[in-house]
Amino acid sequence: MELKKLGEFGLIEKIARSAGAGFPAVIKGIGDDAAVVRSSKTQCQLLTTDTLIEGIHFERALTTPYLLGKKCIAVNLSDIAAMGGTPVCFVVSLSIPPKTPYEFIHKLYQGMIHRARAFGVSLVGGDTTGSRDHMVITVTVLGTARTDRVIYRHGARAGDRIYVTGFLGDAALGLLLLQRGKALSRIRLLVAKHLDPMPRVAEGNTISRMRLASSMIDISDGLLADLRHILKESQAGAQIWLNHLPLSPQYRQHWQEGADDRYVPALCGGEDYELLFTVPLDKQKRVAALEQACGIPVTCIGEITAKQGALKVLDEQNREVAYGKEGFTHF
Amino acid sequence: MELKKLGEFGLIEKIARSAGAGFPAVIKGIGDDAAVVRSSKTQCQLLTTDTLIEGIHFERALTTPYLLGKKCIAVNLSDIAAMGGTPVCFVVSLSIPPKTPYEFIHKLYQGMIHRARAFGVSLVGGDTTGSRDHMVITVTVLGTARTDRVIYRHGARAGDRIYVTGFLGDAALGLLLLQRGKALSRIRLLVAKHLDPMPRVAEGNTISRMRLASSMIDISDGLLADLRHILKESQAGAQIWLNHLPLSPQYRQHWQEGADDRYVPALCGGEDYELLFTVPLDKQKRVAALEQACGIPVTCIGEITAKQGALKVLDEQNREVAYGKEGFTHF
Repeated sequence: MELKKLGEFGLIEKIARSAGAGFPAVIKGIGDDAAVVRSSKTQCQLLTTDTLIEGIHFERALTTPYLLGKKCIAVNLSDIAAMGGTPVCFVVSLSIPPKTPYEFIHKLYQGMIHRARAFGVSLVGGDTTGSRDHMVITVTVLGTARTDRVIYRHGARAGDRIYVTGFLGDAALGLLLLQRGKALSRIRLLVAKHLDPMPRVAEGNTISRMRLASSMIDISDGLLADLRHILKESQAGAQIWLNHLPLSPQYRQHWQEGADDRYVPALCGGEDYELLFTVPLDKQKRVAALEQACGIPVTCIGEITAKQGALKVLDEQNREVAYGKEGFTHF
Repeated sequence: MELKKLGEFGLIEKIARSAGAGFPAVIKGIGDDAAVVRSSKTQCQLLTTDTLIEGIHFERALTTPYLLGKKCIAVNLSDIAAMGGTPVCFVVSLSIPPKTPYEFIHKLYQGMIHRARAFGVSLVGGDTTGSRDHMVITVTVLGTARTDRVIYRHGARAGDRIYVTGFLGDAALGLLLLQRGKALSRIRLLVAKHLDPMPRVAEGNTISRMRLASSMIDISDGLLADLRHILKESQAGAQIWLNHLPLSPQYRQHWQEGADDRYVPALCGGEDYELLFTVPLDKQKRVAALEQACGIPVTCIGEITAKQGALKVLDEQNREVAYGKEGFTHF
């Protein structure tokens, strides 16, 4: 069997099974936004890694080395945020073609260091190697959390409401319009969401401290794709209410396709790096306090249902809507 | 300036400078075998990462996926060992061409998981992505240690004796003879040292627990190259006694070049993954107990001198010997 046919998620599952149990320090291994490892009676360490490959995850022509560096860090901080944790430090492994201009590498590291520093996170090590012909950037972030406050993908229960921070679909829409040749000056805010995402670290921390969420994940592959991870781990279903999806003013302005396609980037577009979380009914009244603390919209977009694996998208008339493309798969 | 001209070590230094200080949790950032980050009053976390690139660090034709997996873990465990720490878990980022046979990936992961499990270390996460045309494997290991027992590169003082675990040069010699077409069956033990190195985790732990070493590093780039790191961080010099270098029976049997070249693989060959450490004179008598605890040779090969940066290699008649090639540089 070739890898291509197995697909990314199948591969990860097979590996997770063979990695097996029997390690008492490991609270959560493969299968969440970050691994959770006990480090003392009350504290745990969070570990997450992400790789960006030139020609697959980024093109040098469509970004700057500084923004690329920032993004490498942001996507990893987002994983720590999705556990309710606090990022501490990172290591970076960089494989670079020998002819890469030094200036590029310098700016790339500057972007990483600056984005990290803004969150109190420091570069503590790494490995630089020559690659053959394209750049590969792997960042691993170490974070910390109180063990009893970590939020996993597996805690959602029927009746819980589904929330997201910020707006959905801007990043995907920004990339799409850029690829269609739209003038950058007219879509700057959307493109910024794609090139320079802001990880919701403070928001994840606040959600954890308020003990608000029964489950949480960050939206990297798209709302529906990432919600499916929560549903799978929680053995639950969900319905999403189309007319509740938080769309930014820029999104509404620039995305005037037919009514059917109106919500596609918000439902299926990846790289929003917003937090998607579920809140039990009896804690819902505290969401207003969360929104105030965060200073960004926190929106209820649906609810968890009992029917395992069933994910329904409903329009204003409560009619089910079908969407084919559900996120980005690597193989 | 092109990266090629700057060289790997120059690049790392420039980055270390710009990463800067001001992070109270970070005890040691860039510049040792692993980063050291405070996690409680007495404990710290160790973090290290290493990348192996197909066509640069390995060739599929010269190894098996299972051995390759084992080696990816071993080289990282070796870095934790060199700090005197205990490895806990690892994440792996794998970039694989889409046409890679599933069997290859499966065996690769098996190798990683088995080598890790033998040291009580578990796979807790990772990222698999499609690459364009060759494989890139990045492993990051999280370890732990008592903060007051971590051993750094910077503690060597004039008069300290220099020790190594095990034998030197076998891995480099194994690779060299393999490349020269020597029959595998005749050099199996040497080749095994290259393809399937054994990290000295228990040994590093014992050295740390016995508070024996003033500085330590693992030998990945070659004895002289790695000793230079200790000298630089310790602002010291050293002399190495050629006729004290521990050479394995296989090394002596298969390496009968002219007298001048006799010690080259042992001095300059990389990938031994033995521990190189310095012991203050007053603790020397405890090395015998260490050797007994470890069950492998622990050999005094020289001493630290006061002359900063001066690294002399002396023959039996105490005459200085010059060696040009001092390890492997990536760019």
